[in-house]
Amino acid sequence: MMNWYIENGPDSDVVVSSRVRLARNFKGYPFPFRMSKEQQEEILEKTKNAIFKGNEFMQKDFSFTDISSLNTIERYALVEKHIISKEIVNNKNHSGLILSSDEKISIMVNEEDHLRIQCLESGMKMDSAWETCNRIDLLLEEDIDFAFNESLGYLTCCPTNLGTAIRVSAMLHLPALTMTGYIRTILDACGKLGIAVRGLYGENTEATGNMFQLSNQVTLGKNEEDIIKSIKNITYQIIEQERILREELYKQNKHKFEDRIFRSYGVLQNARIINTDECLKKLSDVRLGVDMGIITEIKITSINEIMLMIQPGGLQKVANKEITPEERDVIRAELIRQKLIKQIS
Amino acid sequence: MMNWYIENGPDSDVVVSSRVRLARNFKGYPFPFRMSKEQQEEILEKTKNAIFKGNEFMQKDFSFTDISSLNTIERYALVEKHIISKEIVNNKNHSGLILSSDEKISIMVNEEDHLRIQCLESGMKMDSAWETCNRIDLLLEEDIDFAFNESLGYLTCCPTNLGTAIRVSAMLHLPALTMTGYIRTILDACGKLGIAVRGLYGENTEATGNMFQLSNQVTLGKNEEDIIKSIKNITYQIIEQERILREELYKQNKHKFEDRIFRSYGVLQNARIINTDECLKKLSDVRLGVDMGIITEIKITSINEIMLMIQPGGLQKVANKEITPEERDVIRAELIRQKLIKQIS
Repeated sequence: MMNWYIENGPDSDVVVSSRVRLARNFKGYPFPFRMSKEQQEEILEKTKNAIFKGNEFMQKDFSFTDISSLNTIERYALVEKHIISKEIVNNKNHSGLILSSDEKISIMVNEEDHLRIQCLESGMKMDSAWETCNRIDLLLEEDIDFAFNESLGYLTCCPTNLGTAIRVSAMLHLPALTMTGYIRTILDACGKLGIAVRGLYGENTEATGNMFQLSNQVTLGKNEEDIIKSIKNITYQIIEQERILREELYKQNKHKFEDRIFRSYGVLQNARIINTDECLKKLSDVRLGVDMGIITEIKITSINEIMLMIQPGGLQKVANKEITPEERDVIRAELIRQKLIKQIS
Repeated sequence: MMNWYIENGPDSDVVVSSRVRLARNFKGYPFPFRMSKEQQEEILEKTKNAIFKGNEFMQKDFSFTDISSLNTIERYALVEKHIISKEIVNNKNHSGLILSSDEKISIMVNEEDHLRIQCLESGMKMDSAWETCNRIDLLLEEDIDFAFNESLGYLTCCPTNLGTAIRVSAMLHLPALTMTGYIRTILDACGKLGIAVRGLYGENTEATGNMFQLSNQVTLGKNEEDIIKSIKNITYQIIEQERILREELYKQNKHKFEDRIFRSYGVLQNARIINTDECLKKLSDVRLGVDMGIITEIKITSINEIMLMIQPGGLQKVANKEITPEERDVIRAELIRQKLIKQIS
């Protein structure tokens, strides 16, 4: 089984990844932010039991990590992999993570809600991500009574998640829409349709490297299938527009287009110091070059790998110690060179 | 025999080339700017005779080019090779060029003076350049009476050349002195010592790519050997300071130093559009990298070749037609890539 980022999913020229997550809370327990230590332990135990007890496949393929025992570096590495949210890094609760070996399926325990079930897939694969989440949800429901109300649906810590408690999202790479400025129109349209657009690392993050994350805002009054359908519809429209603009930009000035792509590629292959922001911008150019068949010697999945690898947390994990931002910029440059050279030869 | 720019001369880490030129005028003829057509022809004929008549070696190794028959592109290509001066491109006189096969030795006829004898060598080789010029001068004097005055020495069109009528110059690559700003001190000192400092293409040109051309201003009241000695002295001092600063900069921040060099290298290997100015700046970084053993896969002489190749005139000669500046930037980028890739493989 392959991690999502080294798989090549459908429509991967524009859609980097699809994600579905469900929020669930136990009936008869307060929400995590006001639980007692004992209640936190009970939730952890009950969840582990529901997943692992007598289920040989789950026992083999899933592992449990005690988040409270991880240091800040290790937690940030999980944020960068989109497995936990960055708000949870400083969480004082006793929290845990149940993760599949391919890192696609995760269940966070005692985060903002008692449970967050998430499935991450490569490319445009919202349906399959939803099916996976649904299967895990059903498995858990065999043992656990979730807090549910006829009119409000699943009860969640934050009222914006009430109802289906589902969040469907797509990470899109939109360099041509950004270059031409048409991204503004897209963002306005999304707002009107109740779709939130964020940067690479969720709320309050910028769209570094031309990465935009679309997700539903409404969770109440619509069923899961309808929510997924509406996100899929708008995503397909954006894919179409992005593709047309890429071709147009290329046709308008082939040399200028290639110059930008190859210069970024040249810098990534040669730099000795590079910060995250510059790196993500240059990777965006290279990704575009690979998608358009201009750069043929590297694979799109390598760019996914590099994107995960170059984040501060991931780098510190590689270095196996806390390192200064200056050291990070040097190690980052070195890792990128190794990765790109390995790809070519 | 190799052209100067593909030879690796002494002290070539700092000294790109050495040059000596002598100005000579015929006795009994007005200076070129007020000669009749007939007088121009006589000067041309007498010079050709003096060089070629009964001298088998000269006949074999030297060729005559009628400058008046060259188009603007071809003339600019000679300017870029430092064989003729840019002031002469629009010269209406009937002028000619006698050039050795290695392009080191040239005699320009009916330029600013009747004759300009020049020798260009790779690296720090002023003595040998002077010896060569002197030999050619003696050969010409066997047949020609030069305008000479006991108190003024050789008579020249421009009074600043009176006396020895010698110009000794060195083309220096001074990136570390420039980066640190110490170049100012050098320029001031040169001014006080009567040494002119110019850019890559002579008077009124900027020091693009950290290239500085040192040459004597005084030609009167000193003999040739003393003039050469004083230029050599200051050049050796500059070489020493440039080398110390390079090492210091490298030691201060190895990563930053290498980052600059390799980024420039990466851009030159990958750009699809590049103008002369950016190209010369990046070549300066790469030259520094090669000199310091940081880049090992290419030779310094390839950088010399690229420097000549990328000039507008040289590019037009390659393209074999007049081309727009936009086309030039594309062809330039392509030639550099070919040259650098050929070097590596």
